[in-house]
Amino acid sequence: MDMTKFVELSLGSWRSQRSAHHLAFRHFEEVTSSIDIIALKESDSEVISLCQSYKIDPTLAAHPFRMSWQGETDWDDLESTFEGTTILVPIPDLDNPKAGRLLRDQGYAETIPSVGQYQITEDGTFVLKTAYDRAMAEEKIWFVNPNFRLRISLIKTSQGSGVVTASFSSETRILESKS
Amino acid sequence: MDMTKFVELSLGSWRSQRSAHHLAFRHFEEVTSSIDIIALKESDSEVISLCQSYKIDPTLAAHPFRMSWQGETDWDDLESTFEGTTILVPIPDLDNPKAGRLLRDQGYAETIPSVGQYQITEDGTFVLKTAYDRAMAEEKIWFVNPNFRLRISLIKTSQGSGVVTASFSSETRILESKS
Repeated sequence: MDMTKFVELSLGSWRSQRSAHHLAFRHFEEVTSSIDIIALKESDSEVISLCQSYKIDPTLAAHPFRMSWQGETDWDDLESTFEGTTILVPIPDLDNPKAGRLLRDQGYAETIPSVGQYQITEDGTFVLKTAYDRAMAEEKIWFVNPNFRLRISLIKTSQGSGVVTASFSSETRILESKS
Repeated sequence: MDMTKFVELSLGSWRSQRSAHHLAFRHFEEVTSSIDIIALKESDSEVISLCQSYKIDPTLAAHPFRMSWQGETDWDDLESTFEGTTILVPIPDLDNPKAGRLLRDQGYAETIPSVGQYQITEDGTFVLKTAYDRAMAEEKIWFVNPNFRLRISLIKTSQGSGVVTASFSSETRILESKS
């Protein structure tokens, strides 16, 4: 597994079930959503401008993609809907094709641009660490099979010791109907 | 990380939040429980008889332990409580201290004895695969820090292709109060 293969496998539409554990309160949050992931071109103007905003040479970008989602959560016992979209641009390390930086124009944990550090482990797990001003996010994504993937996200305090929220998503590919 | 270290870190009392995703129905199940893990001696009669029931030389056992749990689930919208206990006996491979068989006198997926195959990956994740008559269970457990661990369990069809249930536990060590 490398980043090329990982992005290729990720492309498509996914039906997601997510459970968030808010640890201090032993609270469970349930989220259902649909997620669309589409490939972008390295030459796409949005990709180039995101690279430039980080003062990174756009020719270093590899396999950028757009992720969009819409869903609903039972947070606070109120059913509420949400949606969003973000551009993600991998910038592989020059000396290691299985690691690099991931730029995005909007993060999960905070709605601000972010740059995280990714690597793909020996067993094919994509691991992403992102430092924010007052928090750290750590994410693991792996494919159980090409049509089913799991995602773990941890939100930690900025010191990185305490885990505030641990969440788990199971994502099933929405196969196009044959008609 | 090896099995000795993994079992040592696991010993103690844990407060667990578990979310199960029943994928066919997009159903969320919420489970809270407390878990106690205590070391057993290799010479313990229960350990020896479990080995013998699998016709395994009891002197091959390393770091056996007992796990007990009690908790409650909201399955079927009924709050119901449960409890259980099981003995687990690692039998390391002779040529690889990071892999082996794990015997238990009672499984999670089915309440029958089971023998699974474990390995500890390069990044310290304990991975256990257990084949049952009509299902396969795959479990990953890793420590985010010594007092916080995560556990993913998948129940698959016996062919191993389809995932029926994916569940996620976040487990926080219950520290003894200093008095």
